Amino acid sequence: MDINAANQEAMGRVLTAQPVLVGVGRALDLIPGMSLDLILHAGPPITWERMSGPLRGAIIGGLILEGRAGTEAEATALVERGGVRFEPCHHHAAVGPMAGVTTASMPVYVIENRAAGNRAYSNFNEGYGKVLRYGAYSEDVLARLRWINGTLAPAVGDALQRAGGLDMKAMIAQQLTMGDEGHNRNRAGSAIFGRLLAPHLARGGLSPEVLEQVLRYFADNDLAVLNPVMAACKATMDAAHGIAGSTVVTCMARNGTDFGIRVSGLGDRWFTALATVPVGLYFPGFSAADANPDIGDSTITETAGIGAFAMAAAPAIVKFVGGTPAEAAAATLEMYEITVGENPAFGLPPLDFRGTPTGIDIRKVVRTGITPRVNTGIAHRMPGIGQVGAGLVRPPMACFEQALEAMADLAT
Amino acid sequence: MDINAANQEAMGRVLTAQPVLVGVGRALDLIPGMSLDLILHAGPPITWERMSGPLRGAIIGGLILEGRAGTEAEATALVERGGVRFEPCHHHAAVGPMAGVTTASMPVYVIENRAAGNRAYSNFNEGYGKVLRYGAYSEDVLARLRWINGTLAPAVGDALQRAGGLDMKAMIAQQLTMGDEGHNRNRAGSAIFGRLLAPHLARGGLSPEVLEQVLRYFADNDLAVLNPVMAACKATMDAAHGIAGSTVVTCMARNGTDFGIRVSGLGDRWFTALATVPVGLYFPGFSAADANPDIGDSTITETAGIGAFAMAAAPAIVKFVGGTPAEAAAATLEMYEITVGENPAFGLPPLDFRGTPTGIDIRKVVRTGITPRVNTGIAHRMPGIGQVGAGLVRPPMACFEQALEAMADLAT
Repeated sequence: MDINAANQEAMGRVLTAQPVLVGVGRALDLIPGMSLDLILHAGPPITWERMSGPLRGAIIGGLILEGRAGTEAEATALVERGGVRFEPCHHHAAVGPMAGVTTASMPVYVIENRAAGNRAYSNFNEGYGKVLRYGAYSEDVLARLRWINGTLAPAVGDALQRAGGLDMKAMIAQQLTMGDEGHNRNRAGSAIFGRLLAPHLARGGLSPEVLEQVLRYFADNDLAVLNPVMAACKATMDAAHGIAGSTVVTCMARNGTDFGIRVSGLGDRWFTALATVPVGLYFPGFSAADANPDIGDSTITETAGIGAFAMAAAPAIVKFVGGTPAEAAAATLEMYEITVGENPAFGLPPLDFRGTPTGIDIRKVVRTGITPRVNTGIAHRMPGIGQVGAGLVRPPMACFEQALEAMADLAT
Repeated sequence: MDINAANQEAMGRVLTAQPVLVGVGRALDLIPGMSLDLILHAGPPITWERMSGPLRGAIIGGLILEGRAGTEAEATALVERGGVRFEPCHHHAAVGPMAGVTTASMPVYVIENRAAGNRAYSNFNEGYGKVLRYGAYSEDVLARLRWINGTLAPAVGDALQRAGGLDMKAMIAQQLTMGDEGHNRNRAGSAIFGRLLAPHLARGGLSPEVLEQVLRYFADNDLAVLNPVMAACKATMDAAHGIAGSTVVTCMARNGTDFGIRVSGLGDRWFTALATVPVGLYFPGFSAADANPDIGDSTITETAGIGAFAMAAAPAIVKFVGGTPAEAAAATLEMYEITVGENPAFGLPPLDFRGTPTGIDIRKVVRTGITPRVNTGIAHRMPGIGQVGAGLVRPPMACFEQALEAMADLAT
């Protein structure tokens, strides 16, 4: 088993990936293995008993949205009598930010990796404040989700058809020259996404009132493109998964309780440890005491070499997650220590267009003692509240150590 | 005469400026002193005999657009028999990129400086390729201008009314965190401009076909926001003009033949010298032999402390104008040597949010031998062709030496 050759094969699949946003549809119709009694969530597998507040809150909201429960109490009772199955988004070629809760009726973006032929999916971004992905499920949160399901998603799907899809690799490359790192900062990408769709939305037969609402979604939401970016990263990394001998990390994800990773050459196994609380900046009125441990599938961006790995491109992000611009560049530089290579498609202007550090090698992580860096939002630890800040976090070293031991076991 | 106190007064007016894009209207109706027989142009005053090819081309196009001539020959004859008056945009509180040709029927953006109460104006950006501002005047160029006059401008004006105007200071501040420097690179700003207007455009009563065209203008044109940005800079610097004793440059502009500057404490006098050819990158098929000398009012951006002065914020621009990202940062750092102060509203992320170098002091320019840096487009030297490249240029030192002599004469 030649690990280096296997890692080069994995890297080749990452570098040649061609993720294209091809459309929008209903999770039940599109996501492989989706069913009415199934709720997908972020991170590695977890039982209801061990779930954190924001994940439980999002599940309660999802069950009310689906009409399977009328209240929090009904939703909880339904779960406790075994009426709901839970599986990770990642088991279904999907990803979701924060709680990542994806239910049958929800619309999803469809990304096709035209190099490898695989697809990946992500739900729609709800915007800021009290939102399901941070565990909020009040009536206004649900009303917003119904509007996304019934109005926004069909309009965007229709516009994407007329646009002939959207090249997400070119999108990400462009974002990285415009101060985005693609995880916590997606302002430029969302502006580009909105401006590209706008002329096609104009031809969708929407009333002026509805068209205004849809265009306002893109005008106001600096995270609109996050979910397609995440799905593009998922489609990219899935293509690099399953290569015998490869020590490249193809997934990092958190369910709010555990941080888990998967490795290309180690099949479907998860290597998990307890998630930690990010270090960051809190919104007025909140502090670290309110924070839930790290949560969400959005670490697929770092797994694919953007997010905190591309932080050098986004010095202004320190106003949101803390730190200094020099530390932003240092974050990227450090990640070259633990990656297999660089992605020339994603050139970082402040580093003279050097490609982003790409392809986390568990061997290098364990050898150097450097864990991957992650930029992230911070959820309140209680259900029903929402986002309380944003910051920086690293996965537990134990995940990488366990994976390396598993790789050693395979080799013997 | 306390020069330093006068310069602090000028700087104060720059730093407190509040340029807001308040609307759109017809040049004839809005620009002070505009008339049917008058054509405004970029740069200092110039006679037809001394005008460069692209400026002549744009004037020919402007006369055909206004219906004052049917052909190039008719336009030239009309000019040669004295039927057209020419004055700088800058004499009318206006600015225009490249040739800067602004005629009576053209729509203009209106910027109000809410701190000082003054207004400034700029025409609409036409997009890329064969365009009037680069001296092209073929039928497709004119058709595009008619569409801007008749369709785009009214729609944008209407949307701006519904939006309640647009804070250009906040816009520029945001651009500088998104890889724009506000002169040659306005990709992020144009995307934001488009996304902010889009929901308001949806309510303008336009047919889907026309709305699609208007939204496509914003989707395709990375310079859409350049003209309002220039007018915002003009409204800012006009407020700092006319302070007795101030050696702050309030205007730098080129007509394609001469580079001219004006100084706050030196009234309406221009200090000019022959413009030079920018050093830069050429589009395929063109070279420096095709280039016209430096042209346009867009140097108002550098005068106000953005453009090349903010190049540290836009490392990716070197792919367009030449050089390396390190040189982009060095360009900004050098400009601190010749400026009165820094603008904290325009923090540069790569320089730890240091404010842009602002307020060129002619004394410092002459003493250090450092002339201002300018990012610019390059026009073909012949009329009727258009843009051939983009690059970097500096004004002639003679402009600053003459101005300093004039200041010395005043003091004696």
